[in-house]
Amino acid sequence: MLYAYWKSGHHEDDSVFELFFRRNPFKGEFTVFAGLEDCLRYIANFKFDAASCRKLADKFPSWDPTFWDYLQTLDCSKVRIYAPREGTLVFPREPLLRVEGPLGICQVLETTLLVLINFASLIATNAARHRLAVGPDKALLEFGLRRAQGPDGAMTASRYAVLGGFDGTSNVKAGIEYGLALSGTHAHSFVGAYQTFADLKTTILVPADGGEPREFLACVLANRKKLKAMGTNDGELAAFTAYAQSFPTAFLALIDTYDVLESGLPNFLAVALALHEFGYMARGIRLDSGDLAYLSKRCRNVFEEVATAFGVEAFRNLTIVASNDLSEEVLWSLKEQGHSIDAFGVGTNLVTCSAQPALGCVYKLVEVRGEPRMKISQDHFKVTIPGRKECYRLYNSQGQPVVDIMVPTYPSAPDSSSSEPPASATAATAETSSTSSPVSRTVTAQTIVGKTPRVGERVLCRHPFDPTKRVFVTPSKVEKLHHLVWDCGKIVVTFPTIQESREYVLQQLATFRSDHLRHLNPTPYKVALSAELFTFMHDLWSNVTPIIEIF
Amino acid sequence: MLYAYWKSGHHEDDSVFELFFRRNPFKGEFTVFAGLEDCLRYIANFKFDAASCRKLADKFPSWDPTFWDYLQTLDCSKVRIYAPREGTLVFPREPLLRVEGPLGICQVLETTLLVLINFASLIATNAARHRLAVGPDKALLEFGLRRAQGPDGAMTASRYAVLGGFDGTSNVKAGIEYGLALSGTHAHSFVGAYQTFADLKTTILVPADGGEPREFLACVLANRKKLKAMGTNDGELAAFTAYAQSFPTAFLALIDTYDVLESGLPNFLAVALALHEFGYMARGIRLDSGDLAYLSKRCRNVFEEVATAFGVEAFRNLTIVASNDLSEEVLWSLKEQGHSIDAFGVGTNLVTCSAQPALGCVYKLVEVRGEPRMKISQDHFKVTIPGRKECYRLYNSQGQPVVDIMVPTYPSAPDSSSSEPPASATAATAETSSTSSPVSRTVTAQTIVGKTPRVGERVLCRHPFDPTKRVFVTPSKVEKLHHLVWDCGKIVVTFPTIQESREYVLQQLATFRSDHLRHLNPTPYKVALSAELFTFMHDLWSNVTPIIEIF
Repeated sequence: MLYAYWKSGHHEDDSVFELFFRRNPFKGEFTVFAGLEDCLRYIANFKFDAASCRKLADKFPSWDPTFWDYLQTLDCSKVRIYAPREGTLVFPREPLLRVEGPLGICQVLETTLLVLINFASLIATNAARHRLAVGPDKALLEFGLRRAQGPDGAMTASRYAVLGGFDGTSNVKAGIEYGLALSGTHAHSFVGAYQTFADLKTTILVPADGGEPREFLACVLANRKKLKAMGTNDGELAAFTAYAQSFPTAFLALIDTYDVLESGLPNFLAVALALHEFGYMARGIRLDSGDLAYLSKRCRNVFEEVATAFGVEAFRNLTIVASNDLSEEVLWSLKEQGHSIDAFGVGTNLVTCSAQPALGCVYKLVEVRGEPRMKISQDHFKVTIPGRKECYRLYNSQGQPVVDIMVPTYPSAPDSSSSEPPASATAATAETSSTSSPVSRTVTAQTIVGKTPRVGERVLCRHPFDPTKRVFVTPSKVEKLHHLVWDCGKIVVTFPTIQESREYVLQQLATFRSDHLRHLNPTPYKVALSAELFTFMHDLWSNVTPIIEIF
Repeated sequence: MLYAYWKSGHHEDDSVFELFFRRNPFKGEFTVFAGLEDCLRYIANFKFDAASCRKLADKFPSWDPTFWDYLQTLDCSKVRIYAPREGTLVFPREPLLRVEGPLGICQVLETTLLVLINFASLIATNAARHRLAVGPDKALLEFGLRRAQGPDGAMTASRYAVLGGFDGTSNVKAGIEYGLALSGTHAHSFVGAYQTFADLKTTILVPADGGEPREFLACVLANRKKLKAMGTNDGELAAFTAYAQSFPTAFLALIDTYDVLESGLPNFLAVALALHEFGYMARGIRLDSGDLAYLSKRCRNVFEEVATAFGVEAFRNLTIVASNDLSEEVLWSLKEQGHSIDAFGVGTNLVTCSAQPALGCVYKLVEVRGEPRMKISQDHFKVTIPGRKECYRLYNSQGQPVVDIMVPTYPSAPDSSSSEPPASATAATAETSSTSSPVSRTVTAQTIVGKTPRVGERVLCRHPFDPTKRVFVTPSKVEKLHHLVWDCGKIVVTFPTIQESREYVLQQLATFRSDHLRHLNPTPYKVALSAELFTFMHDLWSNVTPIIEIF
């Protein structure tokens, strides 16, 4: 497409594209916007070098060879991008990115911006839904690396899972690269690697107070005896002993290799009690099969009995981690049944978003050469809302967001009287019509200043398609969703840390009305058009759609 | 886990791991093995450098600091890997990889091998299923980059879609990097970028015979008149004209921006006829919305009418490409309804494998220090088949594969008499017990030579779990599935090209019984144990599983 624009002389035409989705994922009514930082790093480094151009030229030998010279000059120095803050809750049809600049470069960015936003936002949304399912107090750990869609899919998943509300990941590389908390346990094969106590190369352990190493295995065996659990699997107990010797301050055992209640749990306790005698506190257990609700409660009961019997109160609060094909659905079901799980390790269903593995973001031309453009379709769902617009989030008097309204920022027809925005325009809207822009416009812009929603002023909000659905809102707070993030060659936004974005997500989950966020049949959040945008869009739509004749 | 193995002195223990899955994806009964080349490149480059170790040490400050020195020495020079050829049809529970070597390094490889095999095999399988749905003669194009799970997910998807039977991709980077055929069209925004004929910067075109440039737009408009299609959208016709001027030898137009039959199709034909007058042949059209079966048939009818009316016979065979949320299900449905589509562009559902976005491969310890190991579970589905084994594919007299049988290659107990395999052992089985191995074994291996299935000899094949399911097979051909691919420091296999692997996949799809491959309720392909492996496994299982007491 870039070649065709260049060949036909349109590559430098002013254009505006919007990136948006049409439906929230996971049968929900919200989406967490993510991937902005990746997009901006891509934009900032966008460049075709001579070697790439040679490879491309080999693939397309019939093309005009001077195109490759043009391609090497192509960069984002004439592009402006507007976006909400990373982690913002967003809704269908509102722009996640507004990309302004020459038609050629803006078109070329399409696919990469889509792939970077689509998956990051999908994962962040999925993570936020898991967080809603378990509540604020449980730990959520991302355990999905092995099942992710490629190594890079895993890195993206780990990063945006934490952004969306997870606490940590077992993906060590992601932990190091993105500064995420690391959390993991051992696998069944560690248990399987031990058959008897003879497999322990050493039976001693240095106590926590740093004294002389003392006999540890004997202490473990003595505790097994006190627990009256002589029938447990010796290989498993040897493995736990070795694991505790390696991680005396962080002993967390996977207890379902043979039998949770008959072997794994008493073996864990024998080692945990021995560690306690050496001055260490065990962390807890992981359950990876069976009835997690039932087993977690049984394990908690046993912890409490042992805490009493052995006088170690802290054992009541040993951590119970659950894994094994968990999903948002399973987390809701566990909550319903009651359980004693403290932390959930979620893998496949989180990182592949198996409930809906793609967010359907699209990237549509909404203005070219100063003229609003609209994609018509026989399928109304695919119709786009024409023209460059700003999006405002309106809050009610309880501080809750109630509607997002889209307002055109440019005149609806190219022959409107041209004038600079008056001095009263806000700084934010003035950005889009700055006279210092290197992008020449065929139509001088006029910001619709009077229509910007303001606190305390009643504004009519219209459903984009249904003319009967209208609402008046007198907002107590107006939030402009989009900010200039890339300004003709430079990133003009400070990247928040993943933890800051995560906090922002959690804060919004606490602010939005819970009926928009709930699991089953949530209420759609309103995304509206201003009155003049509604009228303009529907006029344009009627004009360009032919009336079909049936004979 | 590596730290714990190292700390407890077991990192150099001999071990054997198997990578396998338990259930075929997509409710099918076959899986295409893929990802081997990626695994071997990873293995060959496996190394922790000092900088990585410093970063890791920062994350785990309590660990014994000499561990990091050990980690820097760790490589795959003592590891052997056996695998089927890339593209082989594989089945539940049979090893996709057998990894032999020191416990520490073999354990560390787990997650990366899983992520590399899981997604590649899933995509290749999905692609093969799409190929079965459309038959051998239709073109299948991968169009999913924008919806893939991260940029790298897209690269993997493009590559393994072609390996599994697709013809090309719209992912230019993948095309260049992996040598795949490239195929793409323009988007709606290209059409939206043109409003009137005034948007054409030039109206001329150089004819195919290289003569002087001639007026092209006038020719297009004259043809529109001949087609009696004056009501078509001018902007769309201008866009098609510009696209044809850019790609006169490869004109393929997306015709559903306004209305397929009223505007897009006649506009395409006006341009195609004009191109024909200039000596060029148009490629065809793409449909991206609406009823694809109906619209494709209508378009084909019009192509045939125009071919007759204008005397251009080749127009009968103009290509019709269909896209818009295609999936394996939709392809079957289109076949059922009848259509005139030549090529399918499949995106989201192919690249994210939305019908099942993860293949559940696992990586299990099956032998340590010469002893077979078995993972027991209260859930039988999760029980593993113990010990190192070879896998043979047995063919019937019609040349069809009928059963894969697993045969242990080592004695089932460590106290068996130790002996080298006799000279009659095949070269292939001798590999696994080569005395030149740098891996010291605590038990000298004895290959069960007599049990290797041979052509014309009857062999008992047993279901792994159901003692009543047994079959005698007298094979007409015996194929050993696994080959040594990594031998203690070097890759000992030649990588086939993607096209060679693709041919191998298609050849197998033509060889296997169609009831194993069919879409609905396919017949499971048999994966069996040899008699001695069955007995050994069930004895071990009973011995290690405690009998539960209920009071």
